[in-house]
Amino acid sequence: MAKKQRLLTGLQPSGQLHIGNYLGALKPFADTYGEYESFLMVADYHALTTIKYPEQLRENTIDVVADYIAAGVNPAQAVIFKQSDVPEHTELAWIFECLVTVPFLMQAHAYKDKVGKGLEANAGLFNYPMLMAADILMYDTDLVPVGEDQRQHVEYAREAAAKFNAAYGETFKEPKDKIIKSVGTVPGIDGRKMSKSYGNTIPLFGTDDAIRTAVMGIVTDSRKSGEPLDPEKDTVFGLHRLFSGAQIVDLEKRYLAGSIGYKESKELLAENIIASVTPMREKRAALSRKSILKILADGGEVAREHASKKIKIVREKIGVTFT
Amino acid sequence: MAKKQRLLTGLQPSGQLHIGNYLGALKPFADTYGEYESFLMVADYHALTTIKYPEQLRENTIDVVADYIAAGVNPAQAVIFKQSDVPEHTELAWIFECLVTVPFLMQAHAYKDKVGKGLEANAGLFNYPMLMAADILMYDTDLVPVGEDQRQHVEYAREAAAKFNAAYGETFKEPKDKIIKSVGTVPGIDGRKMSKSYGNTIPLFGTDDAIRTAVMGIVTDSRKSGEPLDPEKDTVFGLHRLFSGAQIVDLEKRYLAGSIGYKESKELLAENIIASVTPMREKRAALSRKSILKILADGGEVAREHASKKIKIVREKIGVTFT
Repeated sequence: MAKKQRLLTGLQPSGQLHIGNYLGALKPFADTYGEYESFLMVADYHALTTIKYPEQLRENTIDVVADYIAAGVNPAQAVIFKQSDVPEHTELAWIFECLVTVPFLMQAHAYKDKVGKGLEANAGLFNYPMLMAADILMYDTDLVPVGEDQRQHVEYAREAAAKFNAAYGETFKEPKDKIIKSVGTVPGIDGRKMSKSYGNTIPLFGTDDAIRTAVMGIVTDSRKSGEPLDPEKDTVFGLHRLFSGAQIVDLEKRYLAGSIGYKESKELLAENIIASVTPMREKRAALSRKSILKILADGGEVAREHASKKIKIVREKIGVTFT
Repeated sequence: MAKKQRLLTGLQPSGQLHIGNYLGALKPFADTYGEYESFLMVADYHALTTIKYPEQLRENTIDVVADYIAAGVNPAQAVIFKQSDVPEHTELAWIFECLVTVPFLMQAHAYKDKVGKGLEANAGLFNYPMLMAADILMYDTDLVPVGEDQRQHVEYAREAAAKFNAAYGETFKEPKDKIIKSVGTVPGIDGRKMSKSYGNTIPLFGTDDAIRTAVMGIVTDSRKSGEPLDPEKDTVFGLHRLFSGAQIVDLEKRYLAGSIGYKESKELLAENIIASVTPMREKRAALSRKSILKILADGGEVAREHASKKIKIVREKIGVTFT
């Protein structure tokens, strides 16, 4: 049997998830990670570029692990760890920084976006492509799952690998990206793409009432009850496509016939979302903080064992160790 | 008795030293380090910004430690270690990078000089002020010896400390600079300031012949033998001031009387330099590679003990550890 390819993904400890995150990232990951030797890294050192409150960082770290496990990742079948438990990542990032130029890092989307908005980027944000390269290359990763708009991350890692290999001899494997199949845009309650920054989200692990309140708040047009509705232009219907399974055929007929109003459609959607997330929410509620810390501690040990071997080779090659 | 202040200095593993380095840096350090609790750090991770040859980095690392010991530093009275033996420095540098802006780092002299010459700086050079801040702040350093033109290094460290303390509570001591008393400019053999980059140096640990050759090559004016010489304008005389002790009074008279020619003056200078450096050279020759590696290993253990305590506090404060 062929050896499984190694896959590494970074989890952003960025706070409460919404159903868009679930469909766009957690579910696709949970559906496929078992095909690979998977490493899930909570990117807490990356998060320092934006989070300055220690309690928030701790809470988000615990939360994101719980989220992935609730979404279907079995901790016995993946190495789940946090970046800060493997400080070798920052060491390797420094080594890569000495091999790439400032203008090269200035091409990174996150940095360009920040500066493009007239804001001052912190140096962490500027350097993060090299920390991310270290995250990936430390484990001889084959594949990194990314969205279409995140290919650049893997390109930076490939470039760091190539630069190091050219300077010091073949050491790092150049990783490939694994484009996450898009579920299409998940609409938010205002009809735009669901995004925390738009404040238009439906929470993934909210209470039933929180989910109902968000769904009932979806913006619709002003057609009166009894008029036909346009499924193509309705946000509620867009979400039905993602949560209402086989009911969608009947729903479409009722939309076109004018035999369902927005209120009823929303109520049905809320119940379907609740039915979808309830098993995950229960799984999540059953996870204790202690059990999550244990998972991270165990994963950290495995990751660090890999990393310490790799950094030993690197240190030898760059000339900071003596035999 | 008052506790000694802690002092940290970084040693550049930049290759063969010249007598300008000795007078400007090694001697002043060796003369005063004993008044403090002194940490000497071989900055091998900083050196990666310029040195890409592992054997050269190893050789320079051994050499710079030998140089300082030969110049009078007693390894039993200082913690001599290399930066790469304490990878916590790169970890702390990352944390600081998340607290300072890109434009702030762009003000650093080394970066501005590089860009000012139309060259592309590597990201290591760009980030080095934060690695240096980590070097200094990791040990609750009180004092950092710097030349007048290097005050900025300590300012960056103070700023990193202030930024961290403001974000996470009082954690780091703001260090002070200790301006190294200038011996005045040490002239090189072409009359300009002695500098490796000008190729006008007299080697500190060269053979007698190498020193003689360099000294005999000092550029002088074309006065004939028997004419009076101008001590103020003569490079040879400038070096006599630094190496010829009490003889200088008599020499000045002979210069003004025209009773000494450049050749004789140079021969005398060469012998005086050789007499000065011979005890150091002998001390240096007696140091085995093995003994130097032992000194670094021992120093690394002490440094890492300090660093691991400090980084533990830092990690707790930023929120990447759990209790």
